[in-house]
Amino acid sequence: MHADYLWTAAPLIVSAPMAKVAMPKLAAAVSKAGGLGFIAAGYHSDHLEDLLQEAEDLLQEGTAETPIKVEEGTPKFLPVGVGFITWSASLEKALPSFSRYCPAAVWLFAPPQGFRDLIPWATRIREATACRTKIWVQVGSVSDAVEVVEAIDPDVIVVQGLDAGGHSLARGASIISLVPEIKDKLQELRPFPQKQIDVFAAGGISDSRGVAAAVALGAHGCVLGTRFLASPESLVAHGYQKALLDASDGGTSTVRTKIYDKVRDIHGWPEGYDGRGLINRTFIDHLNGLSEVKNREMYREELKRGDEGYGVNGRLTTYAGTGVGLIREVIPAGDIVKSLREGARALLYGPHNVSKL
Amino acid sequence: MHADYLWTAAPLIVSAPMAKVAMPKLAAAVSKAGGLGFIAAGYHSDHLEDLLQEAEDLLQEGTAETPIKVEEGTPKFLPVGVGFITWSASLEKALPSFSRYCPAAVWLFAPPQGFRDLIPWATRIREATACRTKIWVQVGSVSDAVEVVEAIDPDVIVVQGLDAGGHSLARGASIISLVPEIKDKLQELRPFPQKQIDVFAAGGISDSRGVAAAVALGAHGCVLGTRFLASPESLVAHGYQKALLDASDGGTSTVRTKIYDKVRDIHGWPEGYDGRGLINRTFIDHLNGLSEVKNREMYREELKRGDEGYGVNGRLTTYAGTGVGLIREVIPAGDIVKSLREGARALLYGPHNVSKL
Repeated sequence: MHADYLWTAAPLIVSAPMAKVAMPKLAAAVSKAGGLGFIAAGYHSDHLEDLLQEAEDLLQEGTAETPIKVEEGTPKFLPVGVGFITWSASLEKALPSFSRYCPAAVWLFAPPQGFRDLIPWATRIREATACRTKIWVQVGSVSDAVEVVEAIDPDVIVVQGLDAGGHSLARGASIISLVPEIKDKLQELRPFPQKQIDVFAAGGISDSRGVAAAVALGAHGCVLGTRFLASPESLVAHGYQKALLDASDGGTSTVRTKIYDKVRDIHGWPEGYDGRGLINRTFIDHLNGLSEVKNREMYREELKRGDEGYGVNGRLTTYAGTGVGLIREVIPAGDIVKSLREGARALLYGPHNVSKL
Repeated sequence: MHADYLWTAAPLIVSAPMAKVAMPKLAAAVSKAGGLGFIAAGYHSDHLEDLLQEAEDLLQEGTAETPIKVEEGTPKFLPVGVGFITWSASLEKALPSFSRYCPAAVWLFAPPQGFRDLIPWATRIREATACRTKIWVQVGSVSDAVEVVEAIDPDVIVVQGLDAGGHSLARGASIISLVPEIKDKLQELRPFPQKQIDVFAAGGISDSRGVAAAVALGAHGCVLGTRFLASPESLVAHGYQKALLDASDGGTSTVRTKIYDKVRDIHGWPEGYDGRGLINRTFIDHLNGLSEVKNREMYREELKRGDEGYGVNGRLTTYAGTGVGLIREVIPAGDIVKSLREGARALLYGPHNVSKL
């Protein structure tokens, strides 16, 4: 893992490619702090070239702390990743950018029919970058993991538990049982692997205790989404950030539902996916029987309120994972990376580690 | 913690008081191995005296390995716990047994209206046992935990995540975010506690990786249910155990639902509770619109098939948590306790601990 990402430190902290809000500024800040930041190409790939150029510019502004650098050449090597919602994004549009800027990783999520749909993505990206761009695939079940390994032999499997915010499988397990079961299954499928498939844990991790737990479960690193939304580098509205800070009791203040897609006119997620977000008026009215049409109208009206439209009494979608109750301040993304990494190391290996029991 | 339970070793492994199946044989085996076993008084307390006498007999058969013993006196002190489903069980019926046999712990679950309903339970059990029986309360959210602390100042809070098998809150977080958020809340509520409230983690833990993760999250110990069902000491049918061993991909092979209560004519669980079990014909037919009446009839018919009635194509209820996919053999409960404890210690503190990253 470290050999592929020389600027990083363990345990590797990753920011998720959250559609529309994880842009070059966030990704660069995370990578500069010794993590791996993902840029969301998201639902399409129209501006990928611009996004990667912006990342390059940000990464040229060096940092004294980490040996990060953009490697010149054809392609260049960018120490950030790019994420695609593959039922919707275009491989054809994305490929030319891979040939010019070779991102450190590509994260493939939610193929329309099954993981064999990712074969062209993996094949052509590997061709375009001579395998330097590592293939990360997000899964939510053991059978997903088996399918992915058989279809494309990925470099990394991101195991997303049902605590996660935003889109993921509607039914599933948390990382507590999902990470160990997938690790065992990989061992069974590939008893003598030529190359290791690294497993990253995602879903419900918001602080260093979650990172330490993921490492204890056998993960090689952690992916966080919600925690990075509460950084100045993410592109979410101030109202969104305020709603995150105000939320507590993440298991009861959030809910998995499809209604937040419906009011925003987002259609096309494959069968079995929904999204976890803070409970707000959209959801409550939906529960109480308000029609989808009327709910959508009210959503559009609410958009005019801007920052005021977020929160428990607002209607604007605020995707968040169950770890939202652990987030108490907006802090720079680089500081998040460092405090998570150092906190987890202290818990696991420090002089006052968990052996205080 | 250890001062209250002198025969135990850290991290403390606990078997859950699973109604109808966690009886003295299982509880005694767990305690004898240096854990803490709970007997399920369950939905009522009619045979509590007999159950505690049976536990005493089993515990008199000593073991060379652990310093466990029944302390004589009035009351006697029994190194096992007892669990009650408090919306249904009778405190009045239970109290005389507490005055004769003082169990090490009482586990209170699911009060009918709110945690203030537990005030008489806590007060009168403490009176009956001069506070030697420690009060454990199971919660599924941060607000539950706050209510419990304010109502009865318990000795232990069992934090149950939504991976858990059997009954628990229908919506919630896994222990990944729930344990840290509750730990922080306790610190906030009681900055200078006279006495520590210990936090135990439950839900999705099936092996030593899960135990190590729970410790990293800040739990003082772990509670396992499903894992102990696959022991010869649990009272589940062979068909049930076979279904557990056959199951994999615990997040997709189990589901949270109320239908398993309905077909068994169990009514009265407080608002907001359901149960997680293996998906079988009862659930699939329910999904496909089979009426509750007909589904119940078919359940009753299925009972005649005995062991054959369990499994994916059967109809008999098989409660299980998402960790079910990690369970591959039926082994003695004492061996489960020892391997979980030793495995977790090796992961956290051993020479080849998780620092191999």
